[in-house]
Amino acid sequence: MSYLTEIAKLLRYYILKSTTQAGSGHPTTCLSSVELMASLLFGGFFHFDADNPDAPNNDRLIFSKGHAAPLLYSLWTVAGKLTEEELLTLRKFGSPLEGHPVRAFPYSEAATGSLGQGLSIGVGMAINGKYIDRLPYRVFVLLGDSEMAEGSVWEAIQLAAYYQLDNLIGIIDVNRLGQRGETMYGHDLDAYAKRISAFGWKTICIDGHEFNEIFKAYEEALKSDAPTMIIAKTIKGKGVSFLEDKEGRHGVALTEAEFKEAIKELGEVKKVTALIKKPEELNPNPKPIEIKEFSKRYSFGEMVATRRAYGEALVKIFPEFPDIVVLDAEVSNSTYAEIFKKYYPERFFECFVAEQNMVGMAVGLALRGKIPFVSTFAAFLARAFDHIRMAQYSEANIKFVGSHAGVSIGQDGPSQMGLEDIAMMRSILNSVVLYPSDAVSTEKLVREAAKHNGIVYIRTTRSATPVIYSYDEEFPIGGSKVLKASDKDLFTVVGAGITLHEALKAYEELKNKGIYIRVIDLYSVKPLDTKTLKKALSETKAIITVEDHYPAGGIGEAVKAEIGSDRVYSLACRKTPKSGTPEELLDYEEISAKAIVSKVLELTNKIS
Amino acid sequence: MSYLTEIAKLLRYYILKSTTQAGSGHPTTCLSSVELMASLLFGGFFHFDADNPDAPNNDRLIFSKGHAAPLLYSLWTVAGKLTEEELLTLRKFGSPLEGHPVRAFPYSEAATGSLGQGLSIGVGMAINGKYIDRLPYRVFVLLGDSEMAEGSVWEAIQLAAYYQLDNLIGIIDVNRLGQRGETMYGHDLDAYAKRISAFGWKTICIDGHEFNEIFKAYEEALKSDAPTMIIAKTIKGKGVSFLEDKEGRHGVALTEAEFKEAIKELGEVKKVTALIKKPEELNPNPKPIEIKEFSKRYSFGEMVATRRAYGEALVKIFPEFPDIVVLDAEVSNSTYAEIFKKYYPERFFECFVAEQNMVGMAVGLALRGKIPFVSTFAAFLARAFDHIRMAQYSEANIKFVGSHAGVSIGQDGPSQMGLEDIAMMRSILNSVVLYPSDAVSTEKLVREAAKHNGIVYIRTTRSATPVIYSYDEEFPIGGSKVLKASDKDLFTVVGAGITLHEALKAYEELKNKGIYIRVIDLYSVKPLDTKTLKKALSETKAIITVEDHYPAGGIGEAVKAEIGSDRVYSLACRKTPKSGTPEELLDYEEISAKAIVSKVLELTNKIS
Repeated sequence: MSYLTEIAKLLRYYILKSTTQAGSGHPTTCLSSVELMASLLFGGFFHFDADNPDAPNNDRLIFSKGHAAPLLYSLWTVAGKLTEEELLTLRKFGSPLEGHPVRAFPYSEAATGSLGQGLSIGVGMAINGKYIDRLPYRVFVLLGDSEMAEGSVWEAIQLAAYYQLDNLIGIIDVNRLGQRGETMYGHDLDAYAKRISAFGWKTICIDGHEFNEIFKAYEEALKSDAPTMIIAKTIKGKGVSFLEDKEGRHGVALTEAEFKEAIKELGEVKKVTALIKKPEELNPNPKPIEIKEFSKRYSFGEMVATRRAYGEALVKIFPEFPDIVVLDAEVSNSTYAEIFKKYYPERFFECFVAEQNMVGMAVGLALRGKIPFVSTFAAFLARAFDHIRMAQYSEANIKFVGSHAGVSIGQDGPSQMGLEDIAMMRSILNSVVLYPSDAVSTEKLVREAAKHNGIVYIRTTRSATPVIYSYDEEFPIGGSKVLKASDKDLFTVVGAGITLHEALKAYEELKNKGIYIRVIDLYSVKPLDTKTLKKALSETKAIITVEDHYPAGGIGEAVKAEIGSDRVYSLACRKTPKSGTPEELLDYEEISAKAIVSKVLELTNKIS
Repeated sequence: MSYLTEIAKLLRYYILKSTTQAGSGHPTTCLSSVELMASLLFGGFFHFDADNPDAPNNDRLIFSKGHAAPLLYSLWTVAGKLTEEELLTLRKFGSPLEGHPVRAFPYSEAATGSLGQGLSIGVGMAINGKYIDRLPYRVFVLLGDSEMAEGSVWEAIQLAAYYQLDNLIGIIDVNRLGQRGETMYGHDLDAYAKRISAFGWKTICIDGHEFNEIFKAYEEALKSDAPTMIIAKTIKGKGVSFLEDKEGRHGVALTEAEFKEAIKELGEVKKVTALIKKPEELNPNPKPIEIKEFSKRYSFGEMVATRRAYGEALVKIFPEFPDIVVLDAEVSNSTYAEIFKKYYPERFFECFVAEQNMVGMAVGLALRGKIPFVSTFAAFLARAFDHIRMAQYSEANIKFVGSHAGVSIGQDGPSQMGLEDIAMMRSILNSVVLYPSDAVSTEKLVREAAKHNGIVYIRTTRSATPVIYSYDEEFPIGGSKVLKASDKDLFTVVGAGITLHEALKAYEELKNKGIYIRVIDLYSVKPLDTKTLKKALSETKAIITVEDHYPAGGIGEAVKAEIGSDRVYSLACRKTPKSGTPEELLDYEEISAKAIVSKVLELTNKIS
């Protein structure tokens, strides 16, 4: 193993040189994982076609401790896929070698850096390997000890055991020191082993700097019939005497003087290149899925909840999108993901009440070419906001579906009501946010979402609403539907989801009073149909937006920001909701047909 | 214990009657916990002054399985604090007996209903009892088995053991059935015991319907020197034969016919009232804290990061606000909460890399009268969005502080950048969102936050910025500062935090070109200083907002929504960020002084 000792030295050299040059980074964090990663990649355990990073049967390596990115880049420099010159662009503007791994560097499996997310991504990739693509690749996840405090890691640990992911191997770099001092368990390896094995994982405790022990551990792990966690005692800053096990050195680059000193300690460094073993070249081998007939069509006026239409839409479009995978967090009888589960159980994965892990799994699946549709109550997607935030940096193609939007869910009360989900999902830079008002448009938009490459959010309603569209209609992203229009329109009312139906009721009531309003279904909340909105603003006296959502970051703000006019008014939920019937609550929050009529009359009086 | 059998029957009667009357609710969920809760409250284990629900030395009972609210209300009906008539207002509009517990019902310790949060709230209350108020009260948390999948529960379990919370007792109602089928471990009590005890808790497995076993368990738990988890095997729907252990009955109320049948099975129900044992009447007995001198004052022009000023402000205001407690998620050397920790270590609690639990703890502390200041990177607050969302329904008085806002953090890259935190915190209905630009205003705003009753968010910057305010200035919530103004102002530039300084740089550059701009420091992002903004809009040709944040839900949208004009332009981060120096990134995202100057010149050309 002397070649590995040389590689380890070279890795240390690369880590120190790149971070010192960058003037920032986490060298001590990288140094503790050197032997572990050198053994994995260059000891023959990791099978990867370095010329084809996305080859389906490559093993996968995720750096859950994303701040060890310089080690990741150094490994691939040793593997000959980066020159030293390229390595030294670390953290420079425009370099794919960012401070934390992103997909711009093709050997970053996923964007990490927010701790505690990598194992969930690994679960998703392992599930893909074991159950979907049926390929024998292994998934390795490098974790730090600090991030073991994150609940999402324990969600992943539970789900991995539940799904019997014997192809998943975690390695915890237990270097004792977190960002500002010792972690909860320090160097007590058994503390980790006890806890993790209690969840049904195999655990192997080793000295993380002893190649013999590391090799034995990988050998054992590869033979294991359960997910395996290698728990490695390491020294933060290993290899540089004045850094080893020292507090206050987290996330601090060496000074030039310190670097010189460190290099002296390293001694002679041989600039070797090492090969990574190639895997067997296999293609995905999914189980043939019997396509089930499902030709249910909605009739005009039929009362169907859009949440139900979502579940049915999945079944309808699956034949066209056989890469779809459906995830749900134990509420599939409420989100109606269960309909898909019934038809295509092999493509449905129960995620239990663990939304963070569910989203991490979705990232893993998306990165392996699947199209995950991820559902829970809109309110509970907030549980996974950091995972959703990070998913965008992995450029993951995921469709999120939040049911039980708004106060109109009724008696369950505010804990179950999605009232900030539109704001949350709009804040994802390149997201698409859709909010269908009926079953037909839901079906169409689910298909648009599947076609679209990128993060899409679909908001669904609990209560049944009438079908108002025919199958002839198309619902392009960025479009809208003008449902009522005339040259007598005094105002424009813009609704979506449940409030679109309130707007239609208001239309009838106002018509009886001789007042005409334009009614727009804003099914595409992001991007907006700016053209139609501006046209309405120029042809009517004002726009009134109505949403079952809090004001900040919602439809009203989106429209006002886009239109830029003082003739845009917005009805939204401005009071803390409570229990009540949907009707009582829509009235209470002044977003009901009655409130819309009121607003129109108030504005009518103002202008007359 | 025959009186308990009678009480259990009465509780079942109340649960069934109230949910049947409401036509919704979770009766089967409530029925499985009856003996457990009847024993606790009426077996003498729970000490609570029912006439003074907020008495400092009351034991606390949190329903983490919040959907068992009807059981909570039924318990208090048996305790004589609700009449049967009042109980029957369950889930009715205007009743304090909402679908899930809220503080409108004085015996709801906290608002729950989003699963997996109650134990963290309990951790906060237990920490308050053991370390701050030094009172001997116990904290009991009723959990469901489904929610044991939530990572946040495992965060709470870790932190409880770390803080040696022997005054914390959890009870898991293991009724096997989740919302849509069996949980991961079904009735395998040992699966829970193994996992939880591995974390250092005492575990006691029992039959959850056997009073003898339940009593023994509580007795043991009350003597335990570690946090204790009672793991109780129960039957969902217990007490009604056609509901017991049946799938498909979660969250479904009984029909009238079913109710009649169920009541028949119950037999004769004695409408008893039972007493709850009172605790010793004790007042909070905090350790006297030696107030430390800290009279550091910033000089005009001094370069100080607002994140540092935050830490120092805590030390300065603590004497005036001795109820402050500071929490941080292992980044206190970055958020500078460590400064407070150094001066008042007894009031600082390390929460490790577990943000969800940190926020739950804060809710618990706030509900016990403390003022928690909770910090981590702005980006990582997203990890706890669902807990923050729920905190508002507990009416919890918490101050959130997010550091490392925006792309201006530099080389670490997007995983560490808060770019949606303003949107997230604005979406909390009654939140206050503050974004100080210098050390003096930071200090003042931290004090305003402490004075304010309600959720406040303060966004701090990583890099040092010059002090621009004198101590004479006041910074009321809802105010702003006009830093540059003249009757020659062509445009108004509105900045905050780092972009305020970019705006000031742009001012100088433009002045040299003979163009004058008004510069406003929008330190209060919510609520906005509408008056000043409207004045600026009327006196200048346009407003340009500049923010180090994504567009959706941010400062630009907030101002546009408030002002309602097509003369408001907004510069924000519209491209996925990357690594780079702060300066490179501010330019790349077109929110730098250079970009502001560009925009002003572009608009100047447009209008001329």
